[in-house]
Amino acid sequence: MRDVSIIGIGQTPVGEHWDRGLRHLAYDALAAAMKDANIERPDALYVGNMLSGEVSGQAHLGPLIADFAGLRGIEAIKVEAACASAAASFRQAYMGVASGLLDIVIALGIEKMTDNVGSALTAGLASAADADYEVIHGITFVALNALIMRRYMYEHKLKREDFAGFALNAHANGAGNPNAMFQRPINKDIFMKSGMVADPIGLMDASPIADGAAAVILCPTDQAREFTDKAIRIKASAVATDSLSVHDRRDPLWLQAAEDSSQQAYRQAGVSPQDIDFFELHDAFTIMAALSLEACAFAKRGQGTWLARDGEITPAGKIPITTRGGLKARGHPVGATGLYQIVEASQQLRGEAGHNQLKNVNLGMTQNIGGSGATIVTHIFERIN
Amino acid sequence: MRDVSIIGIGQTPVGEHWDRGLRHLAYDALAAAMKDANIERPDALYVGNMLSGEVSGQAHLGPLIADFAGLRGIEAIKVEAACASAAASFRQAYMGVASGLLDIVIALGIEKMTDNVGSALTAGLASAADADYEVIHGITFVALNALIMRRYMYEHKLKREDFAGFALNAHANGAGNPNAMFQRPINKDIFMKSGMVADPIGLMDASPIADGAAAVILCPTDQAREFTDKAIRIKASAVATDSLSVHDRRDPLWLQAAEDSSQQAYRQAGVSPQDIDFFELHDAFTIMAALSLEACAFAKRGQGTWLARDGEITPAGKIPITTRGGLKARGHPVGATGLYQIVEASQQLRGEAGHNQLKNVNLGMTQNIGGSGATIVTHIFERIN
Repeated sequence: MRDVSIIGIGQTPVGEHWDRGLRHLAYDALAAAMKDANIERPDALYVGNMLSGEVSGQAHLGPLIADFAGLRGIEAIKVEAACASAAASFRQAYMGVASGLLDIVIALGIEKMTDNVGSALTAGLASAADADYEVIHGITFVALNALIMRRYMYEHKLKREDFAGFALNAHANGAGNPNAMFQRPINKDIFMKSGMVADPIGLMDASPIADGAAAVILCPTDQAREFTDKAIRIKASAVATDSLSVHDRRDPLWLQAAEDSSQQAYRQAGVSPQDIDFFELHDAFTIMAALSLEACAFAKRGQGTWLARDGEITPAGKIPITTRGGLKARGHPVGATGLYQIVEASQQLRGEAGHNQLKNVNLGMTQNIGGSGATIVTHIFERIN
Repeated sequence: MRDVSIIGIGQTPVGEHWDRGLRHLAYDALAAAMKDANIERPDALYVGNMLSGEVSGQAHLGPLIADFAGLRGIEAIKVEAACASAAASFRQAYMGVASGLLDIVIALGIEKMTDNVGSALTAGLASAADADYEVIHGITFVALNALIMRRYMYEHKLKREDFAGFALNAHANGAGNPNAMFQRPINKDIFMKSGMVADPIGLMDASPIADGAAAVILCPTDQAREFTDKAIRIKASAVATDSLSVHDRRDPLWLQAAEDSSQQAYRQAGVSPQDIDFFELHDAFTIMAALSLEACAFAKRGQGTWLARDGEITPAGKIPITTRGGLKARGHPVGATGLYQIVEASQQLRGEAGHNQLKNVNLGMTQNIGGSGATIVTHIFERIN
């Protein structure tokens, strides 16, 4: 198996892009990554996307985007794993290079959500849950997460305000990221007074839907120096799944697939959680941040919010998370999010995170979650220069 | 790179499965393949599917199907490339094993189309074409193919009846396949009198929509004997793309991506078209069979139908195609078709094709096409025992 590294990164600002269509946004990120790596024609393109069929009536994004980007003819395939689509597409690109079948591959995440912010979008998002056993009862995605959060608060005797630290940290970090959708810090008062979305999830617990695209370019590590002196090595890549229906899990308050994929990743990388310098986790809702920290062994069961309370998730803490705003402040263009996380981890490891730059970081972890924990993709990255 | 072989195959009959849902059909094919290979728990599942989001309101098929099949926890990811989704998922499974990251992987194609045979299905199928430049004009998929066929007939001075041989061969072969949707031969009179769908495409030029699922199991060739004495080696795997919009191609009558991917496949396998013993091609419409034969160098430009006229595509001919009925008679559950082709090629190479068994076959080729030629996936398989 060949060792693989990231040699180029690109992203668009996250937000409401009324002036750019699906293919244009994809092109913007793709062109930025190709310029960054100084690549003219990759061997293949893997596209992560969740909703283009439902929202834009457009499937078959591989050839659409390859052609629009001037890459007509190359291998180009779409990968879908709900909100984990982008990290899943990254894994396919990684496997292609690791196998020796492909040398230079782009992984691109793209989502255009604001063209159709009505029932089609809500229904599209709900299609990540179980249509026959969950959605049929009228449940939406935020409602599913609200049920999980409510139970978690009951079990662990917590209040809404115990989750505030996640949102405050995300917005504080988003303020330093020029590509974030929200670049304004919030305080606890704003958090507590924000409107209720699905009790107990308030507006400041929930990540915003948005448009955006992010891309990275991979090649064998032993060729990386031909393209860049800032290569980032992929030290671990793991995917695990769980039942799609939350009610069918042994324990709805435990992200088994996060435990499984993070433990696989720690083993592959030969590291323990203490070695991870920062963690780009999937804070679609604040409850997901808490559950992810617990399942990945950064906190004990029921104590995920303690890390937020004690400031340990901030840039100065033991395990900085959502260092460029996370899903909450950078925004959550669902099928692109996993690659935003990987681009941001690369920025940290390259020393290009600007206002958000962490000091002395060598190992970064990303975790992209699809559904309410049904697909979980974990990667660990290392600076090699 | 590790050499990879197929050690198990499974399929459901193709047809209208009113009594089986998406997950049940997927399970049927998956369980059959696992039984065939005597495997209890694979490392990963790659799912090819095109329409479940639009037709069934269900995305995120990876964990849904893995869990339902008793494989909760394993890596499970969906791949979409319109009607080439299944062969694209097979390629991901192949890359996973070739890379050494995974040992035993299932590739599964599944489509449930008959739950929603109305405008949602037509719109879903059209999403394989360009939403902004083709579909916006009201074009459907059969209409696009009709435009291509009309131009082809004009350029090459052909009549509708010149395409009859493709349908007659497909239905003759489907008669020997217990999993085919249509198991009755047709004659030229039936072909000519069949109703018009989109002039010049008649009912007997067009493949039927259907439900179905097909699966194969892959492992490294050097481990294959532990599971089976009928392993089928993957000798070549190639994907190429073209512009999604047909009007934007240099030549709308030439499947450039079929030429590109077949030439790559011939090079990888070290063979020429004359070495291929049979060819499971993508006869979604008779015109596609003609174009595929030409682009893959089995016929000269404009002479694809001559092979049908001269009987060279039949089991007794130079290049037998659609040996178990093809899309036309076996049926075309779009996101599953590519794996039906691979299962059928495996049956021929194993000597398990029953009434349709070809004699002395060592090399089989499959070609799965997405859109009207925008994604084309070509594989070459070899019997190794």
